[in-house]
Amino acid sequence: PLAGLFEAIVSVTNQVMAVYEMGPWATSVELAMIESLGREIGFTPGTFAGLVTHGGSLANLTGLLAARNLKCPELWSQGPQAELEAIPVILVSSDAHYSVTRAAGILGIGADNIIKVPLDDRRRMNPAALEERILSCQAENKQIIAVVACACATPIGAFDPLNEIADLCEQHDLWLDVDAAHGGRACFSTQHRHLTAGLHRADSVVFDAHKMMFMPALSAFLFYKDKAHQFSAFQQQAAYLFDPSAPEIAEYDIGLRTVECTKRANSYALWGIWSLFGKSLFADLVDITFATARTFYEMLLQASDFEPVHEPQCNIVVFRYQSDWLNALPLEQQNLFHFKLRRQLIESGEFYIVHSVINEQAAFRITVMNPLTTEVHLNQLLNTIRHRAGALQQAFDEPPLVDHCEQT
Amino acid sequence: PLAGLFEAIVSVTNQVMAVYEMGPWATSVELAMIESLGREIGFTPGTFAGLVTHGGSLANLTGLLAARNLKCPELWSQGPQAELEAIPVILVSSDAHYSVTRAAGILGIGADNIIKVPLDDRRRMNPAALEERILSCQAENKQIIAVVACACATPIGAFDPLNEIADLCEQHDLWLDVDAAHGGRACFSTQHRHLTAGLHRADSVVFDAHKMMFMPALSAFLFYKDKAHQFSAFQQQAAYLFDPSAPEIAEYDIGLRTVECTKRANSYALWGIWSLFGKSLFADLVDITFATARTFYEMLLQASDFEPVHEPQCNIVVFRYQSDWLNALPLEQQNLFHFKLRRQLIESGEFYIVHSVINEQAAFRITVMNPLTTEVHLNQLLNTIRHRAGALQQAFDEPPLVDHCEQT
Repeated sequence: PLAGLFEAIVSVTNQVMAVYEMGPWATSVELAMIESLGREIGFTPGTFAGLVTHGGSLANLTGLLAARNLKCPELWSQGPQAELEAIPVILVSSDAHYSVTRAAGILGIGADNIIKVPLDDRRRMNPAALEERILSCQAENKQIIAVVACACATPIGAFDPLNEIADLCEQHDLWLDVDAAHGGRACFSTQHRHLTAGLHRADSVVFDAHKMMFMPALSAFLFYKDKAHQFSAFQQQAAYLFDPSAPEIAEYDIGLRTVECTKRANSYALWGIWSLFGKSLFADLVDITFATARTFYEMLLQASDFEPVHEPQCNIVVFRYQSDWLNALPLEQQNLFHFKLRRQLIESGEFYIVHSVINEQAAFRITVMNPLTTEVHLNQLLNTIRHRAGALQQAFDEPPLVDHCEQT
Repeated sequence: PLAGLFEAIVSVTNQVMAVYEMGPWATSVELAMIESLGREIGFTPGTFAGLVTHGGSLANLTGLLAARNLKCPELWSQGPQAELEAIPVILVSSDAHYSVTRAAGILGIGADNIIKVPLDDRRRMNPAALEERILSCQAENKQIIAVVACACATPIGAFDPLNEIADLCEQHDLWLDVDAAHGGRACFSTQHRHLTAGLHRADSVVFDAHKMMFMPALSAFLFYKDKAHQFSAFQQQAAYLFDPSAPEIAEYDIGLRTVECTKRANSYALWGIWSLFGKSLFADLVDITFATARTFYEMLLQASDFEPVHEPQCNIVVFRYQSDWLNALPLEQQNLFHFKLRRQLIESGEFYIVHSVINEQAAFRITVMNPLTTEVHLNQLLNTIRHRAGALQQAFDEPPLVDHCEQT
């Protein structure tokens, strides 16, 4: 709610951004937050740069565009006429967010040129598999635009081993983009900082303040390890916007670096809360929500009619309902049961959870975002699911379901 | 300020969008506004679709992506490996916003493949010149992805002759994208509606509520004349977001249609004001600000030390300061004088105006956005410029200026 107050200042003053002179406060606030967050990530002061954009998907798109322009600069100007020496590809964690594949489609790299790197048994990118893919791309004369790792990936909240991945990228001179939209703020917590070890070695980092820093949406940060890359993504000018009589101001003209021209001032809330409470607030939020997720995991282990799909690394937990009756059904029916149960649950208004499909099995997925969520709420959630599962079982037993459930 | 109140609801409730179930109100409000605005533009109810995105640049990018996917579908999947039958090009008004050329760079069409269509003496796209370009593209076997017209273009606020352009596009089966980000709302005014005549014939229309509908930034609408095109821009799914047990909801899952995944609910303010005051408020705002710009133009005609660069079509006026002393200087010095004068003006905090370069001449540019702006304010602006110009002249007369003013 306090963050909402700062947000109201944004809306009422409507001091938008693109050019420094249009939004000097907005620009200053944004640059101050980039400086503070970048240091927390571990970048060296004075050497990195960043920007705020409307969401993690746009931030990923912008980071990958900067990488594309560096590795295949002729695509920007010539498009499909460009004579590329090699086919551009992007190596990504198999669990990377869908916006990465989409970015390849948008950027003319080609969604088919996304190469998915296999995961280990905890759904983290497997560095040995990554090395193998890098070597085979080199053998096949493919140009690797970037390696995209996750901290953490959204399906079960797995943090990729960033230091091992960064070693490989350095060795082969590859651009490393880390999508830390959800998990980046683990760096605030002494207890959980190890999960993001190596994050500062990435060439570009996506970090959403509106996810685990509890800010109103949207406030997505994109960092460049090397500040020289901040202008790589775009190469243009609009005469009436950018003033040649004050060229030094270009450093502050955010529009030169973002997909957007006019941009909302999206860092006031973060700046306000950061100024009032300091970073320890964010450390506490990490510790509490991660601990609550752990508690939920242990509750699931103890419950005979639920199973956790994984051991949580952060505040995301994926789990399934199970009973002898359900387990005897074909997988497709089990999945349909989970989908239908979740839809009933959210339509009832009692709880809001999402679904996920892990190893072809449909499951439920929760993300503990509210530090006030307790074991009592989590117990209520399980009891509600139990209760609705019983009712839904009867519907399954009676008329056979004819719905077709498409697997995606 | 009232709009700010509705915006505060957005921030405090933080009901974001991507998937219908996450933001049912936000989605409903957005769809209601799309329906209302689309009808004002002149689309036939039931046949068009739209979305709200974070700014006109993103809206242009999305519309052109939909056109690219329709004309060269293989680029999405195969990227530079795609064997295109013809080189893709985009025909644009020479005064189109810089985001269009940028979009060509981002989308892998190639910024060099932007073909600028010459303007008439009022800086409107010249349909005869457009036809010539279309024919020569056909002769050279170039694939026209889209024709981009403006309503209005930003430099002097010129409205392209949309009906004549639409005739040509229909005749040659071309995608017409109209960037009506600034001028779209002229359609609300009986007196000025003629400027946007033909807008409803465009395949995609960009329309910013945060510009001439006076909403807090950002609230940019993208319309598709044919609702079947709304899913053309993207072709993906994320299993945990989009629920196969309720496929009919995809129509409401905005994330399937935007570059962004999570999206701020950007239409509450517009919906609130529209519901309270109706569209006549917007018609009045058009009439008043356009009339004020006209008044300013007449003041400039009467002043011996100013000249308007054009006769205004809307609320944008571009003008120059002139005196015998200044006119005797080389053009580069005249331009530098204008740039320096403007910088002094905005740094003083007295007025905020922007600069523009029209036919290589630097000029001042104002956009009348506030209906409370009167002749008194405009007179103060001219007097302040006069006063500062006198002071700056002395600086010019004394030590010769060594600054280099780069022409862009």
